[in-house]
Amino acid sequence: MQALLQIAQEFNLFVIEDATEALGSHFSRGRLKGKYAGAVGDMGCLSFNGNKIITAGGGGMIVTDDVKRAEHVRYLIGQAKDDDLYYKHTEIGYNYKFSNLQAAMGVAQVENLDKFIDIKRAHFTYYKNELAGYRGLKLIAEPPYAFSNYWLNSLVVNEDEFGSSRDNLLEKLRKRGIMARPLWALNHLQKPYQGYQAYAIEKAHWYAERILNLPSSVGLSKADLNRVVSAIKDD
Amino acid sequence: MQALLQIAQEFNLFVIEDATEALGSHFSRGRLKGKYAGAVGDMGCLSFNGNKIITAGGGGMIVTDDVKRAEHVRYLIGQAKDDDLYYKHTEIGYNYKFSNLQAAMGVAQVENLDKFIDIKRAHFTYYKNELAGYRGLKLIAEPPYAFSNYWLNSLVVNEDEFGSSRDNLLEKLRKRGIMARPLWALNHLQKPYQGYQAYAIEKAHWYAERILNLPSSVGLSKADLNRVVSAIKDD
Repeated sequence: MQALLQIAQEFNLFVIEDATEALGSHFSRGRLKGKYAGAVGDMGCLSFNGNKIITAGGGGMIVTDDVKRAEHVRYLIGQAKDDDLYYKHTEIGYNYKFSNLQAAMGVAQVENLDKFIDIKRAHFTYYKNELAGYRGLKLIAEPPYAFSNYWLNSLVVNEDEFGSSRDNLLEKLRKRGIMARPLWALNHLQKPYQGYQAYAIEKAHWYAERILNLPSSVGLSKADLNRVVSAIKDD
Repeated sequence: MQALLQIAQEFNLFVIEDATEALGSHFSRGRLKGKYAGAVGDMGCLSFNGNKIITAGGGGMIVTDDVKRAEHVRYLIGQAKDDDLYYKHTEIGYNYKFSNLQAAMGVAQVENLDKFIDIKRAHFTYYKNELAGYRGLKLIAEPPYAFSNYWLNSLVVNEDEFGSSRDNLLEKLRKRGIMARPLWALNHLQKPYQGYQAYAIEKAHWYAERILNLPSSVGLSKADLNRVVSAIKDD
């Protein structure tokens, strides 16, 4: 983010973060110390879908400290009504507002965010300790300058060292009823976006081939986590 | 609708109804007898926003009896996922699904639809009787071939006969805390759509200048309705 912000400043660009999966994560050191994901750039976007660290059943939020832009966003998501009576629209609006019900649920969820992060971090520690030194498997850890919410625990599978492919391991877990997942398919390889690739993309491919996402839900018990680890080790 | 369907058949067109405000309304006579708004054409769209006759807090529904198209809609609103594991997307998808919470609320609301329509129709009858014969005011009634849900009671104000303009009457009601409304501003006059007018639009203008929408909520008491009528008559 520090490098991105520098480029943005140099070329007068506007930085919008899709920060959902990092909600609660923040910089713990350096120039950005204390800055939270979503509040580092000019605007941050958060999803509250059911699978996120906190949920409102659905919907999301845009955060910014720019009052004028916040008002413009509020105008656009509320159908772009210029007035309350004749409903003139100077711009094309959207019906993207939270319902009261979603907002109430979201508020109650925010109160639990710290607790959920604690649980997520404990999950990470458990996986890390149990898989420590296991040949060909490496859990992705937070960098030294950051505090991660560990929304999802991701394992890098090195096929040569592990002796089996990521997809084989994935298949083995799924056969035992354990919902492990690969990385999301890369955007530039999806049919609607083929031909839009504008620069070399190497790291994404590297990770896409090797990442195995492990069960990480807040509701998992120690026994659940142990079942995952046992299934991974039993080959 | 009968004329539209004929044109559609002749030119092989697909008919999509925005039927929200007519939910529960249906044909009571003629060739379309028994057909409900939203189920007359090929597809119907229903909004469950808070101001509609039934609500799910927000969101909406697409109805059709074409199974293949229904499946395609379900695919598109569910992020167009081709598979559950690698998330390939052949088309651009949308995150437009109801949440469980909204669906539960919607189901409970549907159970009340008939009751709500009864209340709405009673509101209409009250307004009609109280304003019967009042010079320059005419309540819009269902046509002889249809059963209306009377979601909104609309008055046509004839300025010459009434002796005052629609906007004057609107203003008078609002000053007394009664939320009457004009017709929604016409699309082709909104700034983003100016220049898109493709045919003569006359009736819409005629109504836009004369319509006054009266309070019609299900929660209104007889005393509330009486207050509205008294405010209209007291000039």
